[in-house]
Amino acid sequence: MRLITYATTAAGTPPEGERLRLGVEADGRVVDVADLAAHHGTTGLPTDLLGLIQAGPQALETLRGLLADVPASATRAPDAVALRAPLRPGKVIGVGLNYVEHVAESSRSLDTAKELPDRPVLFGKPATAVTGSGQPILHNGDLTRQLDWECELAVVIGRKAFRVSEEDAWGHIFGYSIMNDISARDQRRSGQWFFSKGQDSYCPFGPAVVTADEVPEPLNLDLSLTVNGEIRQKSNTRHMLFAIPRLIADISSGMTLEPGDVISTGSPSGVGAAMVPPQFLVPGDVVEATVQGIGTLTNPVVDAR
Amino acid sequence: MRLITYATTAAGTPPEGERLRLGVEADGRVVDVADLAAHHGTTGLPTDLLGLIQAGPQALETLRGLLADVPASATRAPDAVALRAPLRPGKVIGVGLNYVEHVAESSRSLDTAKELPDRPVLFGKPATAVTGSGQPILHNGDLTRQLDWECELAVVIGRKAFRVSEEDAWGHIFGYSIMNDISARDQRRSGQWFFSKGQDSYCPFGPAVVTADEVPEPLNLDLSLTVNGEIRQKSNTRHMLFAIPRLIADISSGMTLEPGDVISTGSPSGVGAAMVPPQFLVPGDVVEATVQGIGTLTNPVVDAR
Repeated sequence: MRLITYATTAAGTPPEGERLRLGVEADGRVVDVADLAAHHGTTGLPTDLLGLIQAGPQALETLRGLLADVPASATRAPDAVALRAPLRPGKVIGVGLNYVEHVAESSRSLDTAKELPDRPVLFGKPATAVTGSGQPILHNGDLTRQLDWECELAVVIGRKAFRVSEEDAWGHIFGYSIMNDISARDQRRSGQWFFSKGQDSYCPFGPAVVTADEVPEPLNLDLSLTVNGEIRQKSNTRHMLFAIPRLIADISSGMTLEPGDVISTGSPSGVGAAMVPPQFLVPGDVVEATVQGIGTLTNPVVDAR
Repeated sequence: MRLITYATTAAGTPPEGERLRLGVEADGRVVDVADLAAHHGTTGLPTDLLGLIQAGPQALETLRGLLADVPASATRAPDAVALRAPLRPGKVIGVGLNYVEHVAESSRSLDTAKELPDRPVLFGKPATAVTGSGQPILHNGDLTRQLDWECELAVVIGRKAFRVSEEDAWGHIFGYSIMNDISARDQRRSGQWFFSKGQDSYCPFGPAVVTADEVPEPLNLDLSLTVNGEIRQKSNTRHMLFAIPRLIADISSGMTLEPGDVISTGSPSGVGAAMVPPQFLVPGDVVEATVQGIGTLTNPVVDAR
């Protein structure tokens, strides 16, 4: 199932004034979950994605059943919905230096080591950084001249995980999405990435969350990123240094993963900082991050001084 | 006003099964806010701290008014309440290397630079790391042999802040508390502090949130920390390198601060890693972090292998 969150108000409305709705993409249209449930007289089905995840597999099965009979009143044309981030995660855990060629380019152009890390390199991005597909990446020229991209497969946690083995890790995944791990490279602070990667809009997320049953090979997905249509990143998730089960086992060895938490599994090579000469995002650019079977996460860069 | 959150169920109940209540410490007793509101027939007053903060100054004034008449039915003996973290923050932003002498000891014993940072060094701790006074710090000997303490003044945001000037920063503060910024020094990952500082229970927070009106001089508060009664840290918030208004202005230059977010303003010198020889927390230890006018945050260290 391809789950999206969309807004019903016009562009320009302040975020707190928007009403968000849960939708399912199916057969080239969007099915509104609340309207679908109302049509069937079904009560108690969560109508936001985080609620649906927290409600567990039974709720998802209920929704799946309702989709067998979709009235016209519950459908929307895809171009009539304004996408937002699928959900607001309790935490977003980023993984640095998780593709071999990116470790190499990063050691050449940034301040990281040449050696492959022997444990996953973890960092946090706050929920306030999260934004959806179609929404702007904020470029503040007073704060950065080095705004960079990173296309990543995002893993959405479905079931609480603490001290989970690699074998059991798959069972804690709800689904998959895309994150663009935006960084202001010149806002690293004594080596810490939090402010460089955690500013508002630096975590584009979406366009949809695809449930795990529809992503049979998450460790064999092509991913790519373009800036203004020019290819910048191109790789496959099989090149991850620490694969998804290892990441979940490692993180959950000390940190509880909760439903709706997101692990952004790291960027392949091809970031702007490593280009010769370096190239960074500027207002007017459009960044598109694509992961096979998930979709394309598209964000314009806007001047936000 | 001194606001606390406490649990009504017995120790050992899983956290999700606990019912949390909001209390006010006054005249040596705890006043339960829900019971107080019920006594007065007041409806609509939030009965959790995050809700109270989000409701704004008027809600706080309403509560203040109710406290003029406290029935016995709304009071609890202090030893009858089990403290929990005052709230679950949307984000916790830590500040590294924010006291001059700690910069020096850190450069001697850890991997940080000798020079004073020219901008605040920011990092994130996830909400799942937060725990309350009296609750255990989890020591997993399989993951760390270097569990360390850091006593810090915590600033609780009251009003949304984005691009706020230093002059206006004070108006965005709801109140103050204490955080003990626990670190597993041997779990830094390629220099990133997130996993070393973000594991479950690594963010003791409390015992209370004291509203800003009762902390007239936040930049002149003694703070200290003991382990098993022996003094380890002793300083004053006037020695911060970047004071509170600068931190709020700096963070909010790129990152929206929301009501209930917490800034942990950095640790003075006296951490275990810098002792000669280094000394770290082990199961059985008791850590007490004290900030003048706020109280003492007490946590036992337990074996959690």
